[in-house]
Amino acid sequence: MSKTLDVGSRESAGSVATGKVSIIMFSGTADKFIPLGVIAQAAAAMEMQVNIFVTGFGLLGFTKTPHDLPFPAEFASMAPALAQGMKAARVEPWDAMLRQAKELGAEVYVCSMMAGVMGLDKADFNDLVDDVVGAATFLEMAGGGQTLFI
Amino acid sequence: MSKTLDVGSRESAGSVATGKVSIIMFSGTADKFIPLGVIAQAAAAMEMQVNIFVTGFGLLGFTKTPHDLPFPAEFASMAPALAQGMKAARVEPWDAMLRQAKELGAEVYVCSMMAGVMGLDKADFNDLVDDVVGAATFLEMAGGGQTLFI
Amino acid sequence: MSKTLDVGSRESAGSVATGKVSIIMFSGTADKFIPLGVIAQAAAAMEMQVNIFVTGFGLLGFTKTPHDLPFPAEFASMAPALAQGMKAARVEPWDAMLRQAKELGAEVYVCSMMAGVMGLDKADFNDLVDDVVGAATFLEMAGGGQTLFI
Repeated sequence: MSKTLDVGSRESAGSVATGKVSIIMFSGTADKFIPLGVIAQAAAAMEMQVNIFVTGFGLLGFTKTPHDLPFPAEFASMAPALAQGMKAARVEPWDAMLRQAKELGAEVYVCSMMAGVMGLDKADFNDLVDDVVGAATFLEMAGGGQTLFI
Repeated sequence: MSKTLDVGSRESAGSVATGKVSIIMFSGTADKFIPLGVIAQAAAAMEMQVNIFVTGFGLLGFTKTPHDLPFPAEFASMAPALAQGMKAARVEPWDAMLRQAKELGAEVYVCSMMAGVMGLDKADFNDLVDDVVGAATFLEMAGGGQTLFI
Repeated sequence: MSKTLDVGSRESAGSVATGKVSIIMFSGTADKFIPLGVIAQAAAAMEMQVNIFVTGFGLLGFTKTPHDLPFPAEFASMAPALAQGMKAARVEPWDAMLRQAKELGAEVYVCSMMAGVMGLDKADFNDLVDDVVGAATFLEMAGGGQTLFI
Protein backbone atom coordinates (compact mmCIF):
# COMPACT_ATOMS: atom_id res chain seq x y z
CA MET A 1 0.00 0.00 0.00
CA SER A 2 1.27 3.43 -0.87
CA LYS A 3 1.80 5.94 1.89
CA THR A 4 0.13 9.30 1.54
CA LEU A 5 -0.48 11.41 4.59
CA ASP A 6 -1.65 10.36 7.97
CA VAL A 7 -4.56 12.68 8.45
CA GLY A 8 -7.01 10.04 9.60
CA SER A 9 -6.44 10.39 13.34
CA ARG A 10 -6.70 14.15 13.10
CA GLU A 11 -9.97 13.92 11.25
CA SER A 12 -11.48 11.45 13.65
CA ALA A 13 -10.50 13.73 16.52
CA GLY A 14 -12.55 16.45 14.88
CA SER A 15 -9.62 18.87 14.77
CA VAL A 16 -10.06 19.59 11.09
CA ALA A 17 -8.62 22.87 9.86
CA THR A 18 -10.93 25.38 8.28
CA GLY A 19 -10.18 27.84 5.59
CA LYS A 20 -8.76 28.00 2.15
CA VAL A 21 -5.35 27.30 0.67
CA SER A 22 -4.51 28.57 -2.79
CA ILE A 23 -1.34 27.63 -4.61
CA ILE A 24 0.22 29.51 -7.50
CA MET A 25 2.29 26.82 -9.22
CA PHE A 26 4.89 28.74 -11.19
CA SER A 27 8.04 26.60 -10.89
CA GLY A 28 8.48 23.78 -13.35
CA THR A 29 11.35 21.83 -11.83
CA ALA A 30 10.41 18.28 -10.88
CA ASP A 31 11.06 18.74 -7.16
CA LYS A 32 8.47 21.49 -6.69
CA PHE A 33 5.59 19.32 -7.84
CA ILE A 34 5.99 17.17 -4.73
CA PRO A 35 5.01 19.91 -2.24
CA LEU A 36 2.20 20.84 -4.65
CA GLY A 37 0.81 17.30 -4.37
CA VAL A 38 1.45 16.94 -0.65
CA ILE A 39 -0.01 20.29 0.40
CA ALA A 40 -3.03 19.97 -1.91
CA GLN A 41 -3.76 16.45 -0.71
CA ALA A 42 -3.26 17.24 2.99
CA ALA A 43 -5.31 20.45 2.85
CA ALA A 44 -8.15 18.83 0.90
CA ALA A 45 -8.19 15.91 3.36
CA MET A 46 -8.53 18.48 6.16
CA GLU A 47 -11.61 19.81 4.37
CA MET A 48 -9.93 23.04 3.36
CA GLN A 49 -10.88 24.60 0.04
CA VAL A 50 -7.92 24.14 -2.32
CA ASN A 51 -7.44 26.23 -5.48
CA ILE A 52 -4.41 25.75 -7.69
CA PHE A 53 -3.36 28.26 -10.34
CA VAL A 54 -0.84 26.81 -12.75
CA THR A 55 1.34 29.37 -14.50
CA GLY A 56 4.90 29.89 -15.77
CA PHE A 57 6.87 26.67 -16.20
CA GLY A 58 4.26 24.92 -14.08
CA LEU A 59 2.21 24.39 -17.25
CA LEU A 60 4.76 21.79 -18.37
CA GLY A 61 3.43 19.42 -15.72
CA PHE A 62 -0.15 19.57 -16.95
CA THR A 63 0.00 19.08 -20.73
CA LYS A 64 -1.44 15.99 -22.44
CA THR A 65 1.90 15.55 -24.18
CA PRO A 66 4.15 14.94 -21.16
CA HIS A 67 7.33 16.98 -20.66
CA ASP A 68 10.48 15.84 -18.93
CA LEU A 69 10.51 18.07 -15.87
CA PRO A 70 14.10 19.09 -15.07
CA PHE A 71 15.71 18.61 -11.67
CA PRO A 72 17.07 21.82 -10.10
CA ALA A 73 20.58 22.49 -11.39
CA GLU A 74 22.09 22.93 -7.91
CA PHE A 75 20.97 19.53 -6.65
CA ALA A 76 21.32 17.43 -9.81
CA SER A 77 23.74 15.05 -8.12
CA MET A 78 21.10 14.17 -5.50
CA ALA A 79 18.41 13.18 -8.03
CA PRO A 80 19.09 9.41 -8.16
CA ALA A 81 19.28 9.03 -4.36
CA LEU A 82 16.08 11.03 -3.89
CA ALA A 83 14.19 9.04 -6.53
CA GLN A 84 15.24 5.86 -4.73
CA GLY A 85 14.31 7.36 -1.34
CA MET A 86 10.86 8.31 -2.63
CA LYS A 87 10.34 4.76 -3.82
CA ALA A 88 11.62 3.21 -0.57
CA ALA A 89 9.39 5.53 1.48
CA ARG A 90 6.51 4.64 -0.84
CA VAL A 91 5.70 8.28 -1.53
CA GLU A 92 3.11 8.50 -4.26
CA PRO A 93 3.80 10.46 -7.45
CA TRP A 94 2.68 14.09 -7.20
CA ASP A 95 -0.06 13.67 -9.78
CA ALA A 96 -1.61 10.79 -7.83
CA MET A 97 -1.65 13.00 -4.72
CA LEU A 98 -3.19 15.84 -6.72
CA ARG A 99 -5.81 13.48 -8.13
CA GLN A 100 -6.78 12.51 -4.59
CA ALA A 101 -6.95 16.20 -3.65
CA LYS A 102 -9.28 16.76 -6.60
CA GLU A 103 -11.54 13.90 -5.49
CA LEU A 104 -11.78 15.76 -2.18
CA GLY A 105 -12.71 19.00 -3.94
CA ALA A 106 -9.45 20.70 -4.97
CA GLU A 107 -9.62 22.65 -8.23
CA VAL A 108 -6.87 23.25 -10.76
CA TYR A 109 -6.81 26.23 -13.11
CA VAL A 110 -4.31 27.09 -15.81
CA CYS A 111 -3.31 30.74 -16.33
CA SER A 112 -4.83 31.96 -19.59
CA MET A 113 -2.02 34.44 -20.25
CA MET A 114 0.73 31.83 -19.91
CA ALA A 115 -1.25 29.31 -21.97
CA GLY A 116 -1.41 31.98 -24.69
CA VAL A 117 2.33 32.63 -24.44
CA MET A 118 3.02 28.90 -24.89
CA GLY A 119 0.47 28.61 -27.69
CA LEU A 120 -1.66 26.16 -25.72
CA ASP A 121 -5.40 26.05 -25.13
CA LYS A 122 -7.68 24.01 -22.91
CA ALA A 123 -7.61 20.94 -25.18
CA ASP A 124 -3.83 20.73 -24.73
CA PHE A 125 -4.05 20.12 -20.97
CA ASN A 126 -4.72 16.83 -19.22
CA ASP A 127 -7.71 15.93 -17.08
CA LEU A 128 -6.19 17.34 -13.89
CA VAL A 129 -7.04 20.81 -15.23
CA ASP A 130 -10.54 22.12 -14.54
CA ASP A 131 -10.36 25.30 -16.59
CA VAL A 132 -8.19 28.03 -18.09
CA VAL A 133 -8.74 31.37 -16.33
CA GLY A 134 -7.12 34.78 -15.87
CA ALA A 135 -5.07 35.93 -12.89
CA ALA A 136 -7.84 38.26 -11.71
CA THR A 137 -10.32 35.40 -11.54
CA PHE A 138 -7.84 33.37 -9.50
CA LEU A 139 -7.07 36.23 -7.10
CA GLU A 140 -10.76 36.54 -6.46
CA MET A 141 -11.00 32.80 -5.69
CA ALA A 142 -8.03 33.08 -3.35
CA GLY A 143 -9.47 36.00 -1.39
CA GLY A 144 -9.78 35.52 2.33
CA GLY A 145 -7.47 32.51 2.48
CA GLN A 146 -3.76 31.81 2.37
CA THR A 147 -1.87 31.67 -0.89
CA LEU A 148 1.45 29.95 -1.52
CA PHE A 149 3.67 30.79 -4.49
CA ILE A 150 5.61 27.66 -5.41
CA MET B 1 -2.95 47.65 -28.24
CA SER B 2 -1.13 45.71 -25.60
CA LYS B 3 -3.00 43.09 -23.65
CA THR B 4 -2.85 43.27 -19.89
CA LEU B 5 -5.51 41.63 -17.81
CA ASP B 6 -9.19 41.47 -18.43
CA VAL B 7 -10.51 42.70 -15.15
CA GLY B 8 -12.97 45.23 -16.61
CA SER B 9 -16.02 42.96 -16.66
CA ARG B 10 -15.34 41.86 -13.13
CA GLU B 11 -15.08 45.39 -11.89
CA SER B 12 -18.23 46.52 -13.63
CA ALA B 13 -20.05 43.57 -12.08
CA GLY B 14 -19.07 44.90 -8.66
CA SER B 15 -17.35 41.65 -7.64
CA VAL B 16 -14.13 43.38 -6.68
CA ALA B 17 -11.97 41.51 -4.21
CA THR B 18 -11.13 43.12 -0.94
CA GLY B 19 -8.04 42.76 1.08
CA LYS B 20 -4.36 43.08 0.80
CA VAL B 21 -1.69 41.26 -1.18
CA SER B 22 1.95 41.64 -0.22
CA ILE B 23 4.77 40.25 -2.30
CA ILE B 24 8.31 39.54 -1.11
CA MET B 25 10.31 39.67 -4.35
CA PHE B 26 13.46 37.72 -3.60
CA SER B 27 14.20 35.87 -6.83
CA GLY B 28 16.15 37.67 -9.49
CA THR B 29 15.72 35.42 -12.50
CA ALA B 30 13.93 37.12 -15.39
CA ASP B 31 10.94 34.77 -15.40
CA LYS B 32 9.85 35.57 -11.83
CA PHE B 33 9.33 39.26 -12.59
CA ILE B 34 6.39 38.36 -14.83
CA PRO B 35 4.17 37.00 -12.04
CA LEU B 36 5.27 40.00 -9.95
CA GLY B 37 3.90 42.35 -12.62
CA VAL B 38 0.79 40.31 -13.35
CA ILE B 39 -0.25 39.74 -9.74
CA ALA B 40 0.48 43.33 -8.71
CA GLN B 41 -1.44 44.73 -11.66
CA ALA B 42 -4.41 42.38 -11.28
CA ALA B 43 -4.66 42.87 -7.52
CA ALA B 44 -4.36 46.66 -7.77
CA ALA B 45 -7.03 46.72 -10.52
CA MET B 46 -9.26 44.77 -8.13
CA GLU B 47 -8.76 47.54 -5.60
CA MET B 48 -6.67 45.39 -3.30
CA GLN B 49 -3.87 47.02 -1.36
CA VAL B 50 -0.58 45.87 -2.88
CA ASN B 51 2.77 46.10 -1.06
CA ILE B 52 5.95 44.82 -2.64
CA PHE B 53 9.14 44.19 -0.67
CA VAL B 54 12.15 43.78 -2.94
CA THR B 55 15.02 41.81 -1.43
CA GLY B 56 17.74 39.31 -2.37
CA PHE B 57 18.46 39.14 -6.09
CA GLY B 58 15.19 40.97 -6.71
CA LEU B 59 17.09 44.25 -6.21
CA LEU B 60 18.78 43.69 -9.58
CA GLY B 61 15.48 44.50 -11.31
CA PHE B 62 15.10 47.89 -9.63
CA THR B 63 18.46 49.63 -10.01
CA LYS B 64 18.92 52.73 -12.17
CA THR B 65 21.82 50.98 -13.86
CA PRO B 66 19.98 48.04 -15.45
CA HIS B 67 21.17 44.47 -14.94
CA ASP B 68 20.78 41.58 -17.33
CA LEU B 69 18.40 39.34 -15.42
CA PRO B 70 19.37 35.71 -16.00
CA PHE B 71 16.92 33.08 -17.21
CA PRO B 72 16.57 30.02 -14.91
CA ALA B 73 19.31 27.51 -15.71
CA GLU B 74 16.91 24.56 -16.07
CA PHE B 75 14.79 26.21 -18.76
CA ALA B 76 17.45 28.15 -20.69
CA SER B 77 16.60 26.34 -23.92
CA MET B 78 13.01 27.64 -23.73
CA ALA B 79 13.99 31.32 -23.43
CA PRO B 80 13.81 32.29 -27.13
CA ALA B 81 10.43 30.58 -27.71
CA LEU B 82 8.97 32.18 -24.59
CA ALA B 83 10.23 35.64 -25.53
CA GLN B 84 8.58 35.22 -28.91
CA GLY B 85 5.38 33.88 -27.32
CA MET B 86 5.23 36.89 -24.97
CA LYS B 87 5.53 39.21 -27.95
CA ALA B 88 2.93 37.32 -30.01
CA ALA B 89 0.50 37.30 -27.06
CA ARG B 90 1.22 41.02 -26.61
CA VAL B 91 2.06 40.58 -22.92
CA GLU B 92 3.43 43.82 -21.58
CA PRO B 93 6.87 43.93 -19.92
CA TRP B 94 6.75 43.33 -16.19
CA ASP B 95 7.83 46.86 -15.34
CA ALA B 96 4.99 48.35 -17.42
CA MET B 97 2.53 46.15 -15.50
CA LEU B 98 4.10 47.19 -12.21
CA ARG B 99 3.91 50.85 -13.23
CA GLN B 100 0.17 50.44 -13.86
CA ALA B 101 -0.17 48.74 -10.48
CA LYS B 102 1.57 51.71 -8.89
CA GLU B 103 -0.82 54.15 -10.61
CA LEU B 104 -3.59 52.15 -8.95
CA GLY B 105 -1.93 52.43 -5.54
CA ALA B 106 0.63 49.62 -5.29
CA GLU B 107 3.76 50.46 -3.32
CA VAL B 108 7.28 49.14 -3.78
CA TYR B 109 9.87 48.99 -1.00
CA VAL B 110 13.45 47.85 -1.14
CA CYS B 111 14.89 45.87 1.80
CA SER B 112 17.35 48.09 3.64
CA MET B 113 19.49 45.16 4.78
CA MET B 114 19.95 43.79 1.28
CA ALA B 115 20.59 47.27 -0.14
CA GLY B 116 23.35 47.58 2.46
CA VAL B 117 24.81 44.21 1.53
CA MET B 118 24.94 45.28 -2.14
CA GLY B 119 26.33 48.71 -1.24
CA LEU B 120 23.28 50.50 -2.68
CA ASP B 121 21.17 53.30 -1.28
CA LYS B 122 17.91 54.93 -2.28
CA ALA B 123 19.51 57.05 -5.02
CA ASP B 124 20.68 53.89 -6.78
CA PHE B 125 17.13 52.63 -7.40
CA ASN B 126 14.77 53.63 -10.19
CA ASP B 127 11.47 55.45 -9.86
CA LEU B 128 9.48 52.25 -9.32
CA VAL B 129 10.84 52.21 -5.77
CA ASP B 130 8.94 54.23 -3.16
CA ASP B 131 11.34 53.77 -0.28
CA VAL B 132 14.00 51.64 1.39
CA VAL B 133 12.70 50.02 4.59
CA GLY B 134 13.48 47.20 7.01
CA ALA B 135 11.87 43.78 7.10
CA ALA B 136 9.99 44.58 10.31
CA THR B 137 8.36 47.61 8.70
CA PHE B 138 7.28 45.48 5.77
CA LEU B 139 5.90 42.69 7.95
CA GLU B 140 3.80 45.27 9.72
CA MET B 141 2.45 46.57 6.38
CA ALA B 142 1.65 43.00 5.33
CA GLY B 143 -0.25 42.18 8.51
CA GLY B 144 -3.81 40.94 8.05
CA GLY B 145 -3.41 40.17 4.35
CA GLN B 146 -1.86 37.49 2.20
CA THR B 147 1.84 37.46 1.45
CA LEU B 148 3.55 35.72 -1.46
CA PHE B 149 7.26 34.92 -1.50
CA ILE B 150 8.44 34.96 -5.09
CA MET C 1 28.29 44.40 17.53
CA SER C 2 26.37 42.49 14.92
CA LYS C 3 23.43 44.15 13.24
CA THR C 4 20.16 42.29 13.18
CA LEU C 5 16.92 44.16 12.68
CA ASP C 6 15.94 47.48 14.11
CA VAL C 7 12.62 46.60 15.63
CA GLY C 8 13.23 48.26 18.98
CA SER C 9 11.66 51.62 18.17
CA ARG C 10 8.62 49.94 16.72
CA GLU C 11 8.16 47.80 19.80
CA SER C 12 8.53 50.68 22.19
CA ALA C 13 5.93 52.61 20.19
CA GLY C 14 3.51 49.78 20.86
CA SER C 15 2.86 49.20 17.15
CA VAL C 16 3.59 45.50 17.38
CA ALA C 17 2.04 43.35 14.67
CA THR C 18 -0.30 40.60 15.66
CA GLY C 19 -0.86 37.31 13.98
CA LYS C 20 1.02 34.34 12.77
CA VAL C 21 3.63 33.78 10.11
CA SER C 22 4.38 30.27 8.93
CA ILE C 23 7.22 29.44 6.58
CA ILE C 24 7.54 26.31 4.45
CA MET C 25 11.29 26.08 3.88
CA PHE C 26 11.66 23.96 0.77
CA SER C 27 14.58 25.52 -1.09
CA GLY C 28 18.06 24.42 -0.14
CA THR C 29 20.22 26.99 -1.89
CA ALA C 30 22.30 29.07 0.51
CA ASP C 31 20.68 32.40 -0.41
CA LYS C 32 17.17 31.37 0.62
CA PHE C 33 18.19 30.72 4.24
CA ILE C 34 18.82 34.43 4.71
CA PRO C 35 15.17 35.51 4.26
CA LEU C 36 14.23 32.53 6.46
CA GLY C 37 16.38 33.93 9.27
CA VAL C 38 15.41 37.56 8.70
CA ILE C 39 11.65 37.00 8.47
CA ALA C 40 11.59 34.58 11.40
CA GLN C 41 13.64 36.91 13.58
CA ALA C 42 11.68 40.05 12.63
CA ALA C 43 8.28 38.38 13.04
CA ALA C 44 9.21 36.80 16.37
CA ALA C 45 10.55 40.16 17.62
CA MET C 46 7.18 41.67 16.67
CA GLU C 47 5.54 39.06 18.89
CA MET C 48 4.04 37.16 16.01
CA GLN C 49 3.74 33.39 16.26
CA VAL C 50 6.32 31.86 13.93
CA ASN C 51 6.13 28.24 12.68
CA ILE C 52 8.71 26.87 10.28
CA PHE C 53 8.20 23.66 8.33
CA VAL C 54 11.43 22.40 6.80
CA THR C 55 11.00 20.15 3.78
CA GLY C 56 12.61 19.35 0.42
CA PHE C 57 16.21 20.47 0.12
CA GLY C 58 15.66 22.70 3.16
CA LEU C 59 16.52 19.68 5.34
CA LEU C 60 20.16 20.04 4.28
CA GLY C 61 20.42 23.17 6.42
CA PHE C 62 19.30 21.44 9.60
CA THR C 63 21.31 18.22 9.82
CA LYS C 64 23.89 17.61 12.55
CA THR C 65 26.39 16.71 9.83
CA PRO C 66 26.58 20.03 7.98
CA HIS C 67 26.09 20.20 4.21
CA ASP C 68 27.62 22.68 1.84
CA LEU C 69 24.56 24.61 0.70
CA PRO C 70 24.92 25.49 -2.99
CA PHE C 71 24.59 29.02 -4.33
CA PRO C 72 21.93 29.44 -7.06
CA ALA C 73 23.41 28.56 -10.46
CA GLU C 74 22.27 31.79 -12.12
CA PHE C 75 24.02 34.06 -9.64
CA ALA C 76 27.15 32.05 -8.90
CA SER C 77 29.42 34.87 -10.07
CA MET C 78 27.92 37.18 -7.42
CA ALA C 79 28.63 34.85 -4.48
CA PRO C 80 32.02 36.26 -3.39
CA ALA C 81 30.83 39.91 -3.55
CA LEU C 82 27.67 39.09 -1.60
CA ALA C 83 29.58 37.17 1.07
CA GLN C 84 31.86 40.17 1.49
CA GLY C 85 28.85 42.55 1.52
CA MET C 86 27.16 40.48 4.24
CA LYS C 87 30.30 40.68 6.33
CA ALA C 88 30.76 44.43 5.75
CA ALA C 89 27.09 45.07 6.62
CA ARG C 90 27.54 42.87 9.69
CA VAL C 91 24.54 40.69 8.80
CA GLU C 92 24.40 37.75 11.14
CA PRO C 93 24.42 34.19 9.78
CA TRP C 94 20.92 32.84 9.14
CA ASP C 95 21.15 30.24 11.87
CA ALA C 96 22.03 32.89 14.46
CA MET C 97 18.95 34.87 13.41
CA LEU C 98 16.84 31.73 13.59
CA ARG C 99 18.21 30.95 17.03
CA GLN C 100 17.13 34.40 18.20
CA ALA C 101 13.71 33.82 16.67
CA LYS C 102 13.46 30.57 18.61
CA GLU C 103 14.38 32.32 21.86
CA LEU C 104 11.41 34.59 21.11
CA GLY C 105 9.12 31.62 20.56
CA ALA C 106 9.55 30.52 16.94
CA GLU C 107 9.24 26.79 16.34
CA VAL C 108 10.95 24.65 13.73
CA TYR C 109 9.53 21.38 12.41
CA VAL C 110 10.99 18.98 9.90
CA CYS C 111 8.68 17.25 7.40
CA SER C 112 8.40 13.58 8.34
CA MET C 113 7.84 12.49 4.74
CA MET C 114 10.97 14.20 3.45
CA ALA C 115 13.01 12.97 6.42
CA GLY C 116 11.90 9.45 5.47
CA VAL C 117 12.86 9.99 1.83
CA MET C 118 16.33 11.11 2.90
CA GLY C 119 16.64 8.28 5.43
CA LEU C 120 16.94 10.70 8.35
CA ASP C 121 15.22 10.71 11.70
CA LYS C 122 14.98 13.16 14.57
CA ALA C 123 18.41 12.28 15.95
CA ASP C 124 20.00 13.34 12.66
CA PHE C 125 18.86 16.96 13.00
CA ASN C 126 20.51 19.71 14.99
CA ASP C 127 19.10 21.56 17.98
CA LEU C 128 17.29 24.16 15.86
CA VAL C 129 14.69 21.48 15.14
CA ASP C 130 11.86 21.08 17.65
CA ASP C 131 10.22 18.04 16.14
CA VAL C 132 9.54 15.95 13.05
CA VAL C 133 5.89 16.18 11.97
CA GLY C 134 3.62 15.57 8.98
CA ALA C 135 2.33 18.14 6.52
CA ALA C 136 -1.21 17.92 7.90
CA THR C 137 0.00 18.80 11.40
CA PHE C 138 1.85 21.80 10.01
CA LEU C 139 -1.12 23.02 7.94
CA GLU C 140 -3.18 22.93 11.09
CA MET C 141 -0.58 25.02 12.96
CA ALA C 142 -0.51 27.49 10.07
CA GLY C 143 -4.29 27.95 9.98
CA GLY C 144 -5.56 31.49 10.32
CA GLY C 145 -2.21 33.12 9.59
CA GLN C 146 -0.04 33.86 6.60
CA THR C 147 2.21 31.21 5.10
CA LEU C 148 5.26 31.79 2.94
CA PHE C 149 6.74 29.11 0.69
CA ILE C 150 10.46 29.73 0.39
